[in-house]
Amino acid sequence: MPKALQPHPDRALPAGEARDVARRIHASTKDLPLLCLHGHVDIGLFATDAPFGNPAELLVVPDHYVTRMLISQGISPDRLGLPRRDGTAPADPRDVWREFCANWHLFLGTPSRYWLEHEFAEVLGVTTHPSAEAADELYDQISARIAEPEFRPRALLDRFGIELISTTDAATDDLAQHAKLAADLPGRVVPTFRPDALVHLDRPGWSVLASRLGELANVDTATYDGFLAAIRQRRQAFVEAGARATDHGHYSAAAIPLTDAEAARIYTSALKGDVSAEDANAFAGHMLYQSAVMSAEDGLVMQLHPGVLRDHDPAIHAAYGPDQGHDIPVATEFTRSLRPLLERFGHAAGFRLVLFTVDETVYSRELAPLAGVYPAVRLGAPWWFLDSPDGMRRFRELVTETAGFYNMSGFVDDTRAFLSIPARHDLARRIDAGYLANLVVQHRLDEDDAFQVAKDLAYNLARDTYLS
Amino acid sequence: MPKALQPHPDRALPAGEARDVARRIHASTKDLPLLCLHGHVDIGLFATDAPFGNPAELLVVPDHYVTRMLISQGISPDRLGLPRRDGTAPADPRDVWREFCANWHLFLGTPSRYWLEHEFAEVLGVTTHPSAEAADELYDQISARIAEPEFRPRALLDRFGIELISTTDAATDDLAQHAKLAADLPGRVVPTFRPDALVHLDRPGWSVLASRLGELANVDTATYDGFLAAIRQRRQAFVEAGARATDHGHYSAAAIPLTDAEAARIYTSALKGDVSAEDANAFAGHMLYQSAVMSAEDGLVMQLHPGVLRDHDPAIHAAYGPDQGHDIPVATEFTRSLRPLLERFGHAAGFRLVLFTVDETVYSRELAPLAGVYPAVRLGAPWWFLDSPDGMRRFRELVTETAGFYNMSGFVDDTRAFLSIPARHDLARRIDAGYLANLVVQHRLDEDDAFQVAKDLAYNLARDTYLS
Amino acid sequence: MPKALQPHPDRALPAGEARDVARRIHASTKDLPLLCLHGHVDIGLFATDAPFGNPAELLVVPDHYVTRMLISQGISPDRLGLPRRDGTAPADPRDVWREFCANWHLFLGTPSRYWLEHEFAEVLGVTTHPSAEAADELYDQISARIAEPEFRPRALLDRFGIELISTTDAATDDLAQHAKLAADLPGRVVPTFRPDALVHLDRPGWSVLASRLGELANVDTATYDGFLAAIRQRRQAFVEAGARATDHGHYSAAAIPLTDAEAARIYTSALKGDVSAEDANAFAGHMLYQSAVMSAEDGLVMQLHPGVLRDHDPAIHAAYGPDQGHDIPVATEFTRSLRPLLERFGHAAGFRLVLFTVDETVYSRELAPLAGVYPAVRLGAPWWFLDSPDGMRRFRELVTETAGFYNMSGFVDDTRAFLSIPARHDLARRIDAGYLANLVVQHRLDEDDAFQVAKDLAYNLARDTYLS
Repeated sequence: MPKALQPHPDRALPAGEARDVARRIHASTKDLPLLCLHGHVDIGLFATDAPFGNPAELLVVPDHYVTRMLISQGISPDRLGLPRRDGTAPADPRDVWREFCANWHLFLGTPSRYWLEHEFAEVLGVTTHPSAEAADELYDQISARIAEPEFRPRALLDRFGIELISTTDAATDDLAQHAKLAADLPGRVVPTFRPDALVHLDRPGWSVLASRLGELANVDTATYDGFLAAIRQRRQAFVEAGARATDHGHYSAAAIPLTDAEAARIYTSALKGDVSAEDANAFAGHMLYQSAVMSAEDGLVMQLHPGVLRDHDPAIHAAYGPDQGHDIPVATEFTRSLRPLLERFGHAAGFRLVLFTVDETVYSRELAPLAGVYPAVRLGAPWWFLDSPDGMRRFRELVTETAGFYNMSGFVDDTRAFLSIPARHDLARRIDAGYLANLVVQHRLDEDDAFQVAKDLAYNLARDTYLS
Repeated sequence: MPKALQPHPDRALPAGEARDVARRIHASTKDLPLLCLHGHVDIGLFATDAPFGNPAELLVVPDHYVTRMLISQGISPDRLGLPRRDGTAPADPRDVWREFCANWHLFLGTPSRYWLEHEFAEVLGVTTHPSAEAADELYDQISARIAEPEFRPRALLDRFGIELISTTDAATDDLAQHAKLAADLPGRVVPTFRPDALVHLDRPGWSVLASRLGELANVDTATYDGFLAAIRQRRQAFVEAGARATDHGHYSAAAIPLTDAEAARIYTSALKGDVSAEDANAFAGHMLYQSAVMSAEDGLVMQLHPGVLRDHDPAIHAAYGPDQGHDIPVATEFTRSLRPLLERFGHAAGFRLVLFTVDETVYSRELAPLAGVYPAVRLGAPWWFLDSPDGMRRFRELVTETAGFYNMSGFVDDTRAFLSIPARHDLARRIDAGYLANLVVQHRLDEDDAFQVAKDLAYNLARDTYLS
Repeated sequence: MPKALQPHPDRALPAGEARDVARRIHASTKDLPLLCLHGHVDIGLFATDAPFGNPAELLVVPDHYVTRMLISQGISPDRLGLPRRDGTAPADPRDVWREFCANWHLFLGTPSRYWLEHEFAEVLGVTTHPSAEAADELYDQISARIAEPEFRPRALLDRFGIELISTTDAATDDLAQHAKLAADLPGRVVPTFRPDALVHLDRPGWSVLASRLGELANVDTATYDGFLAAIRQRRQAFVEAGARATDHGHYSAAAIPLTDAEAARIYTSALKGDVSAEDANAFAGHMLYQSAVMSAEDGLVMQLHPGVLRDHDPAIHAAYGPDQGHDIPVATEFTRSLRPLLERFGHAAGFRLVLFTVDETVYSRELAPLAGVYPAVRLGAPWWFLDSPDGMRRFRELVTETAGFYNMSGFVDDTRAFLSIPARHDLARRIDAGYLANLVVQHRLDEDDAFQVAKDLAYNLARDTYLS
């Protein structure tokens, strides 16, 4: 008999004396609307509002948390349906789904398991655990469910209680889909400005993007000055489309300005296809600083998440493209790296910098001390591998004592997996309820304060950080 | 109605099964005398025994834990009464106090909140929480209280149960106030020798200090040999004034000796005002090693706390001076940095080195292994941002299993905020009681052993480290 | 009256609601056989099956966990019976034992205390705690016990439930003792191939070892090609003797291949006694990569434990030799260091790399992300200083959410202290039971899954990693 899947009402809440307090706190936050102000859901999903394809495409193939775990046990990306760049036909979705179901035990103890159980039970109406035996029945059941009109993406926005969601869009995106959507669903889905591809001059195809930027902005990007002007123009277009923030994924947090002459020299060299790795790195750090300059002008919240060696396995990257789970964190430094930026903008009115990390060692050593003194700095929610029950608990324990609660940015779900958004917010609210409840039963926080802080962490701080 | 302020008798003790054990352990240590052998209270406080000024000057302005949190939320240092170097009149103390009270919620979850609640309730007799509404009444109430004779600093030494307190004094201090105090209160307040300003040759005003050192020591400091001799002479004066220790705040833990010739070369260059940053760093590391040489001779316990980038924001430093909360930790290395020093003195009879850090990553990786094998090494209490409930718990969990309990230095309060001293010791004793109680209820430590260890951590180890 | 020693049946299990669940889980794993597939017990112990010497030689002198703690409190290595290289007669074993017993309190809160209490109570039948007063009686009691036939090493293999144990053997070991043992006790004790001494070209005596390697392998090691061929030959001999794995202790995790020409150049220089530290390091990193090449050929599991500065105190090393407790960890990097190796072998069928660390900062940042995507990578059990109750708990909390349970290698005891093996496995099983029980009572894991995972962690994963 298949094992019944029924997420426990107290899941991820603490045991013992704190449970009751945590239940009450969670009850007070669980129905607050969702602000999803840092995410990677494809804008096309909302623009077309087409039904989702099939269970494998919905829950397995695009979720690198899921595929990386299956790959780690020797299941090839091909058997998981990852599309090859060479156009080889991917595996049959039903076979992919069977592979996933047969390996359901691999996710024990991981956040993917919590999110998926939540999605199965509370979104898709699935009542048994995946298994080799149950795979086909689940496939058919989920297929039927996602064909229903109330499972269209826009309908789910309402069902999920999403007040506002932002996508992440290349600086060279023309925002046409956002324009269409703004007409249909005004003020519900906004873009985020991501200039990463434009500021890393040594990546293949960069000069094409630089040209594309110039065309879009109607500015000649053959010079560094033109490049800056074009970026400013695109930021303005994003602002007009409702954007609240920029998003920067860099290898390091270095935000060190160059002289204009030096920046121009490197830019010009890159246009000729002749740029050293050192120069390209220096230019990227310079552009991070320039992003702060521009944010101080136009008010876009600057979000930085450094410290990941992308595409660690070149063969996987060559065969399947970027972001296939072979991104591995490295030690990251913030104190010295951000000093020039904070020296100039750390106390600047209206400038806000949200810092993320996948290196926990900086929580108490660098991030909390920075956020705990510079008005510009807020700490983003635990990112990526750390967006997990113990990861979120450690984050609170490591930053709160130095930075307090009010230098946090609030929760962001940071996901491409649209169906997981309510699960992620719910899990975060549970962990915060548990953290606060533990403080209450240890008489380190009064219960009335705990309720207020819980609401602030779940909703008010995100509003304050991104929408005030 | 204002919210009543009444610290819970079980505050910061664990919940559940461990609470009763923790209560018993805490009851056994809470009235032990306080040894305050690493602190930064102004000697003038005791020498003049003048009444404290006003609530803002007592509790807000000089406490960078408090001001940094308020600054982080955009309240300018000026509105907090931080004295500007240019002599601009600071804000009215009552206005500063109102700012603090209106932002009391910012301290939720921080150690400042615990310390302040303790001070309010148990020292100042305040019975309501600060708030915008209650600010003026609290100001008047505290002002009246600190005008009473029993609130003079010397009277508080008794009331707080302080057996011995050390101040921190520049190597170029003439110790006149200590001499005065020794006559009035023999053996109760002793100096600590801090040579930092003398060993960082590239800091503005260094050569003036070098001259001042020579005058005080009656030794010509125009040569490196004279400089060393003068330092030895000053250490002797400190020893005669009752000093038990030296204190060293360096950017890195490097304690690497130079040759005499090289040290002399750098020293002579610096006197001419011509020293590179590299040479100055090397000299600082050399002098750390020389401090060990001298400690092995004169018995002063050597205290090292490296790894902080001081005055991260140059504009704040320029306007308000050093130590205004804009000091941010950096990753710190001990294993290689201390090797030459430990090779020579790690097993030396009578030499003792107490290590502090604000980089928690070294607790289990470097500090506990070093303390767990070198007789000279003791681990200082969690420092600065880590002197907090979760910070202290993590410290115990990360070092005890490798270094045991008996390679610790005991608690040090390390504060300029005199009124917070009993609160800090009490919080540390509570956290240790909870840590030990958790071991007891997990059957990892017998209860009789827990009681002994608690006393050792609260009192005996500090005595053994600094006074034996 | 001496204090009774009686390990609590619930020792190291969690308190509160989780205790009952943890008890049940532990009850289900505590009698599983022991797989000891990464250890350092002397092969001579089993080959000769001679009785153990005396309590000091059995429990104090060879256990650097024990001696380092005693040394850290100023007890000289001489008084602990550490044999001097110069042949000075070591202290009388009874005096060593008295020293140990008088300082029993130093081990409070350390894993040594748990292991020793377990050994005393469950292996040696000791019923009182060590103390200065009880020292002689305990000495006599233990001496009598270890003289009994059932305390011979081979008998203890059965009594301890050890299914398979591996020793660690130099690549230049002739495996004669293993051959003898294989005849007497087939398939019970196997060697592990450790080439460290051969791949660090700048260590004293290296060229003698290179010659010895050539003789054993009957290959001329005067050339780099011959050296590689000889290593391949020795690996084959180890495989034939039942070896399952290789073992690599390097200062860093760098596994960066050189060109053949470059490797040959360095090798030839080293044979002439003329090799720089840089070249020697580069060669060691090259040979780590070559070990992966060979493991992909012959199937030996590759075990890597980097990041320790060995023999931190040169004077201790000079007087007493290596591995006397003065080994101190350093920060370690895996993401970049292992990239070339994983690029080539990360997805290779049959290749397996088990990673260990004494730098906890890499658990969530580097190790779990690597193990959570590369099929070749498994994470070894918490190593050395981290093989402790809180260390093991932190390991689970820091890696499971990213890597799950099934990318772990299972527990390895990694000890020279034969008598401590059952204690170490038992403690690990208790900590895992507690970790899983906490997940169960927080409704993060179903209880039936917890039982399965507990068995996998305690036994199945070690079998799968090393024996499949």
